[in-house]
Amino acid sequence: MQEREISKAVIKRLPRYYRYLGELLEHKVERISSNELSDRMQVTASQIRQDLNNFGGFGQQGYGYNVKYLYNEIGKILGLDKTYNMIIIGAGHLGEALANYVKFEKRGFRIIGIFDTNPELEGKTIRGIQIMMDDRLPEFLSSHDIDIATLTLPKAGAEAIAPVLVKGGVKAIWNFAHTDLDLPPDVVVENVHLSESLMQLSYNINRKNRK
Amino acid sequence: MQEREISKAVIKRLPRYYRYLGELLEHKVERISSNELSDRMQVTASQIRQDLNNFGGFGQQGYGYNVKYLYNEIGKILGLDKTYNMIIIGAGHLGEALANYVKFEKRGFRIIGIFDTNPELEGKTIRGIQIMMDDRLPEFLSSHDIDIATLTLPKAGAEAIAPVLVKGGVKAIWNFAHTDLDLPPDVVVENVHLSESLMQLSYNINRKNRK
Repeated sequence: MQEREISKAVIKRLPRYYRYLGELLEHKVERISSNELSDRMQVTASQIRQDLNNFGGFGQQGYGYNVKYLYNEIGKILGLDKTYNMIIIGAGHLGEALANYVKFEKRGFRIIGIFDTNPELEGKTIRGIQIMMDDRLPEFLSSHDIDIATLTLPKAGAEAIAPVLVKGGVKAIWNFAHTDLDLPPDVVVENVHLSESLMQLSYNINRKNRK
Repeated sequence: MQEREISKAVIKRLPRYYRYLGELLEHKVERISSNELSDRMQVTASQIRQDLNNFGGFGQQGYGYNVKYLYNEIGKILGLDKTYNMIIIGAGHLGEALANYVKFEKRGFRIIGIFDTNPELEGKTIRGIQIMMDDRLPEFLSSHDIDIATLTLPKAGAEAIAPVLVKGGVKAIWNFAHTDLDLPPDVVVENVHLSESLMQLSYNINRKNRK
């Protein structure tokens, strides 16, 4: 597939299309027009067509979209036809919560190691996955092919561990630490800054009240 | 303050400005130029000036920004000069993780109740906050002023509980459930869809590899 530069906004919408199409599939819907999809998703039909045209269209004039086909194609675009080896660094409450999300596993994101610095956690397991101490990370990275490192530890720890991950060949970081990591350009990062999300909410609460 | 319509992109950047200014404050930096802030944040200086101009500017020609003043002003814009009563619905791993985030409390988001449907959790506490059964929610909402409801429960549960929250006068929802809630226009919602964030990461992993 020839690839144009796809905007971040489109990429952000793709998982949402994927989710809606998955729900349609669950309800045995076989095809859907961009207008119907538009009603459900509260995105304009022209936006949907435009977004999907970035990847070659998928629709047929007068027929709409074949739900299963579109679902699978968007899944492929999102890389969900592959599996990923993931580690979680930071076995606190959030790390534990993520390790317990079996849905990630079903999507192909396999958690194969959890790391922490707290010696009390050494040898314990979460959902059968062993918690190891951080100092074992370099060895672990050299003997396992790790696609994604999830960082659920405080800022200072995340900044200290990032170079270890990079050196160990990790090319993707899912970062929950409250910092923007300084990473080489070939490492992709996706930030989830929960407190910033909460601040956007409080902004909107106050904005509304001022109206 | 007269308010123009501020774009979502600006609002998304505000918490990040707030975070960087907070770090500067911790390092006792008293003032900073938009150029210096630009270097740190990897946002152009003109973007910074433009963003802050939405709220009246705050900078002085040839002086730059007073860090503490700007930090406080952005805090006010974000509504962080107030306190919010928050409840968490869904005391699973993620709900527990959020209830344990003391940082939210420090920012003024006070968790005053946790709800779940699992009778085994009834009467248990997380960080001293009692877990109550969902059926007590209407009564609780009528006797407490709840600003924010955090939904950390599966999709179907979230969709079922949303009308109860709305009826109980909740005007803001922090939604971690994997669904777009159908809410009246006066209720603000901030979604955190973790699996969609992970899909964006896998998209970028594959996009990189195709280059």
